[in-house]
Amino acid sequence: MEFEQAWLNYTKKGSCDMVDQLTYICVKAQNSGQDALLKSSVAELQRAFSGFFGRQLALCRSSEADKWDSKTEHGIYLALLEGMQPESYHVYEENGEITIEASDSRGILYGVFELIRQVQTDRARKGMKIFKAPAMPLRMLNHWDNMDGSIERGYSGNSFFFQNDRILVNERTVTYARLTASVGINAVVINNVNVKDAATWLITERYLDKVRELSDTFAAYGIKLYLSLNYAAPIELGELENADPLSEEVRNWWKKRMALVFDKVPNLGGFLIKADSEGRPGPFTYSRTHADGANMLAEAAAPYGGIIIWRCFVYNCQQDWRDEKTDRARSGYDNFIGLDGKFLDNVILQIKNGPMDFQVREPVHPLFGGLTQTNQMLEVQIAQEYTGQQRHLCYLIPMFQEILKFRTYVQETDDRVEDIVSGKTFGQHNCGMAAVANTGDDANWTGHDMAAANWYGFGRIAFEPELSAEEIAKEWIRLTYGDDKQVEEALLFLLMHAWEAYEKYTAPLGIGWMVNPAYHYGPSVDGYEYSRWGTYHRADHEGIGVDRSHEGTGYACLYREPNASIYDDKERCPDALLLFFHHIPYTWKLKSGKTVIQHIYDTHFEGVAIVDDMVDRFMKLEGKLPEKPYLRMLKRFLHQKEHAREWRDQINTYFYRKSGIPDEKGRKIYGGVR
Amino acid sequence: MEFEQAWLNYTKKGSCDMVDQLTYICVKAQNSGQDALLKSSVAELQRAFSGFFGRQLALCRSSEADKWDSKTEHGIYLALLEGMQPESYHVYEENGEITIEASDSRGILYGVFELIRQVQTDRARKGMKIFKAPAMPLRMLNHWDNMDGSIERGYSGNSFFFQNDRILVNERTVTYARLTASVGINAVVINNVNVKDAATWLITERYLDKVRELSDTFAAYGIKLYLSLNYAAPIELGELENADPLSEEVRNWWKKRMALVFDKVPNLGGFLIKADSEGRPGPFTYSRTHADGANMLAEAAAPYGGIIIWRCFVYNCQQDWRDEKTDRARSGYDNFIGLDGKFLDNVILQIKNGPMDFQVREPVHPLFGGLTQTNQMLEVQIAQEYTGQQRHLCYLIPMFQEILKFRTYVQETDDRVEDIVSGKTFGQHNCGMAAVANTGDDANWTGHDMAAANWYGFGRIAFEPELSAEEIAKEWIRLTYGDDKQVEEALLFLLMHAWEAYEKYTAPLGIGWMVNPAYHYGPSVDGYEYSRWGTYHRADHEGIGVDRSHEGTGYACLYREPNASIYDDKERCPDALLLFFHHIPYTWKLKSGKTVIQHIYDTHFEGVAIVDDMVDRFMKLEGKLPEKPYLRMLKRFLHQKEHAREWRDQINTYFYRKSGIPDEKGRKIYGGVR
Repeated sequence: MEFEQAWLNYTKKGSCDMVDQLTYICVKAQNSGQDALLKSSVAELQRAFSGFFGRQLALCRSSEADKWDSKTEHGIYLALLEGMQPESYHVYEENGEITIEASDSRGILYGVFELIRQVQTDRARKGMKIFKAPAMPLRMLNHWDNMDGSIERGYSGNSFFFQNDRILVNERTVTYARLTASVGINAVVINNVNVKDAATWLITERYLDKVRELSDTFAAYGIKLYLSLNYAAPIELGELENADPLSEEVRNWWKKRMALVFDKVPNLGGFLIKADSEGRPGPFTYSRTHADGANMLAEAAAPYGGIIIWRCFVYNCQQDWRDEKTDRARSGYDNFIGLDGKFLDNVILQIKNGPMDFQVREPVHPLFGGLTQTNQMLEVQIAQEYTGQQRHLCYLIPMFQEILKFRTYVQETDDRVEDIVSGKTFGQHNCGMAAVANTGDDANWTGHDMAAANWYGFGRIAFEPELSAEEIAKEWIRLTYGDDKQVEEALLFLLMHAWEAYEKYTAPLGIGWMVNPAYHYGPSVDGYEYSRWGTYHRADHEGIGVDRSHEGTGYACLYREPNASIYDDKERCPDALLLFFHHIPYTWKLKSGKTVIQHIYDTHFEGVAIVDDMVDRFMKLEGKLPEKPYLRMLKRFLHQKEHAREWRDQINTYFYRKSGIPDEKGRKIYGGVR
Repeated sequence: MEFEQAWLNYTKKGSCDMVDQLTYICVKAQNSGQDALLKSSVAELQRAFSGFFGRQLALCRSSEADKWDSKTEHGIYLALLEGMQPESYHVYEENGEITIEASDSRGILYGVFELIRQVQTDRARKGMKIFKAPAMPLRMLNHWDNMDGSIERGYSGNSFFFQNDRILVNERTVTYARLTASVGINAVVINNVNVKDAATWLITERYLDKVRELSDTFAAYGIKLYLSLNYAAPIELGELENADPLSEEVRNWWKKRMALVFDKVPNLGGFLIKADSEGRPGPFTYSRTHADGANMLAEAAAPYGGIIIWRCFVYNCQQDWRDEKTDRARSGYDNFIGLDGKFLDNVILQIKNGPMDFQVREPVHPLFGGLTQTNQMLEVQIAQEYTGQQRHLCYLIPMFQEILKFRTYVQETDDRVEDIVSGKTFGQHNCGMAAVANTGDDANWTGHDMAAANWYGFGRIAFEPELSAEEIAKEWIRLTYGDDKQVEEALLFLLMHAWEAYEKYTAPLGIGWMVNPAYHYGPSVDGYEYSRWGTYHRADHEGIGVDRSHEGTGYACLYREPNASIYDDKERCPDALLLFFHHIPYTWKLKSGKTVIQHIYDTHFEGVAIVDDMVDRFMKLEGKLPEKPYLRMLKRFLHQKEHAREWRDQINTYFYRKSGIPDEKGRKIYGGVR
């Protein structure tokens, strides 16, 4: 399959005085010839300068520096030196020379991409000085790719990691690694957390040589390969009768297995596990805890520096909709809070941003701020499962930013989600942020060309959470489409309004789940209302929402104060989350001064209006954007425009029919059938 | 795959004075040795008598009759003679001899099955005299089997006609033919009306030899094989660029094709076509009419006696739910009424029983009584697509009976649907009744053991519509499970209450479509409400129903008087169809004296109560029924019991939440969430 270069398309640029005299790259490091990362760094610089300026940078050893004429020729120095934070880098210009310093070669590579980014976005200036250190130790992508080549919740074609139960390593893999590394992502899980069939065999000799090849390819870009693991592997591989984490036999099996795996793939980062969730096997089968399960694996992987990432997405997916006491939102917290402090140090709990499942709006997961003695990782989803499946534009970085800035009040300062998963709050090292990936083998990688901004933005924000979503968006636009002001303004407007628009024309006031079951695309207000999934809106003719206050399921009380009191109180709960926490009459006045029902009508009309505006602005870019991506995006935007109306009309009609309350503004709602 | 004998299990019986002295079968017909049907008739008698009485009946020519001792030995005479109606038969006993007379060997075979049925159900008596002639010329099964072995809307396993794109002819095929012929079915379409992939090639040399083998197997039981045809075959077989029915090239292509097909398979009955429907190709592509399309095929098939059966299930399946003017119910009528009289004599229009699609309750299709110069066939569905998918029991013969007895008022007498499709009304010969089949390769053929009563009953009622559903049920029970009175009473109760119960706990007052989209199983009140399928209930907080009166879509006016006036008037429209024809407030008083909303609540509680009673009665048969079918059925009945509650609770909750009107009787409805 053909593929493009996304934001690494090094197209011709005008001259730039800072780099005009650069003619060589000089690596100051011992054994630099053997370091694959340094090789990648040099090659990337060469590729970029060749693309931008048509200039070939020569590579020289530091001892050969005198062969260059220091008046007319300058170099880029890549220097490994002691004493800097891991993965951090300095990039600075002095007397025509550019230096990139770091204490590890990953830092050098990130510095190289920083320099390229600066040049490519025309920010490189004489005297520039940049120091950066990543906020989060682990910055990870989770691919939900299956070995048959399909991708669970994939909206960009098929897998480029797997095909017909084989692992692929090819030119596309390298480009993927370059793109991923360029935004500072340092870990990648290649296979679906629902590990079935052939994927269970990834940890066997059937695949380990090829896993090694892939992990080496990644390593050259500073990326650690991780695998999703089948908790029941000892059984499914036909070697044991059970997978009890306290059984000596099972524990030994895993020790031997880890020895084999890390012997074959020494670079391997570790494993991601979805256990006892949505039908996946786990320690519950043996009346053991998640800690028992995770620690067994962690103990076996520890000698090799392996990390066990254990997902907290555990809930009863066989709920009876008639049961109003069970609350899926509570389940992650209830399942894990009692295990705080019981996990080994090489275990990380991976916690979704919200308590449900990647809805367009959810409160922050109460395990953040709940757990104090456990390594934690924030899981977000850039695959737009519930946010338009890359047919709608939905730039998610503003949402991630809100989540990262959320104050948990676990302590007086440094208590934000960002602080916790950066390791600041509790001084942890095994922590970070993971995103369920949005890539596939489509030529543009992400189905919607602009969905690449979520891939780009995720890496950037995990590295530098202080960047604003807007800064990131601007960077991505300039890198991808160059420096045309009109293009930048238009695409920036689109990106910055997309989430707001999507929220407005879909699910109001934090209620979520008004989607078609199973495939999660398009409106269906009652689609999940009578299901087994624990996902209800409880709308009747008088009101809507789930009572999660202390009088209801008590979920609101899982937060620390003052969050708990705020959420618990209808009067103080933020409008955006009101229906998540409370059952509210349609006639209730929101803080905005509008009634709930009028808010529903208004936001749905507003959401469509924003999309119309977005599409108008986009269409003015005809001729300004390259034709291929323009036409690809146009098709999606025209669909979004129509589909936003479908959302608006179904939601408004549903609530008009149910409540009987007309729109104050008398707009067309398709309710009146007599 | 293992298979059972269904209602042809000839198990041991006590003696029966009428048949005690029978020792031989005598065939009085010329060239009887060459007639496969007569051979089948003899073999069936031998098999039955061997099973019932452990007696081998010898076969003798009529010239050898004197070799038997006429005092102690008697025979069954199969006599072909002139002058009787096609397919009709006499069966009578005289002086110890039993005679089966007919003018064709199909009549003989049906007489044989009549005799067997009489013996098996202990109704055979000395002096018996039975004359029967089938009411409908065509009595047909439509299988929706795909060549990959799957069955569209199949709930009984995979196809036994196809596997991996091959045609199967084996022992099961013969048993299928025996079962099918035993109830008088004389035509079978083996492949899905949605003709795709390999099935398009059934009319090519790739498959015709095997089609011939199958058609010969069927012919030995008086069954004509039909094929579903791909209208676009000339294109899809790669031979022509278009399929315009008025193009000489296309017409010649079909003539040559028919010549080939009938040369290879001279027994072939003809073809069934779904054109311009749900994405299937058809003459609309070329701005031609259905008559143009059907007549082109009919002309090509006529020299070989081939029949073209053209489905009237044509509607816009891309409707906008906001559009309240378009009415799917009208579409079959609107598409075909103008073509009345334009079809060749070997074309039959196949019309579904109702204007929508096999819902548990629909009015009769207005084309019946609308068309007066066109051959018509009634299509019903014994595959329980919308009636519980053979996991719920739903005996459909009472429904079919209502449909057949429906007066169209197309003339003063003989105006019932039954009269039209029997040929009585307009003197037609190419007409009859077809059922979408419910069989598959499950051991018991129909998934639910008792669903076999629908297969059995369909054949019986198409042959003898004057039989009551209860008589047919009794026959089927006795044939299948013997003469235990307790078994008969219990199963009869189950069969006779099943449709009523299913209607009660599912969709009220004729509204239909409250099912999960795509797979059509289980409740989802709004599942089709905002879809493109033209299937809406238009429920709001005040009322529900579709206005199809003269003030609405005008559908009610498509009927002849007095039906039109009755349906058009809320006050006169039967309760069972009220919401089909009118949008009615929940507080409206029905003829029953109940409000609509109270009717909804009551029927849903009643439906569940009936199922509970059914299951109780069934469970008393433990030990009385053979263990295997008992356990199979028990599993399904227990599921039905639970699933009926799911229906009840979802529907009642939905309407309570929407209307806010409480149940007068204060029963538990899961609406009140505060």
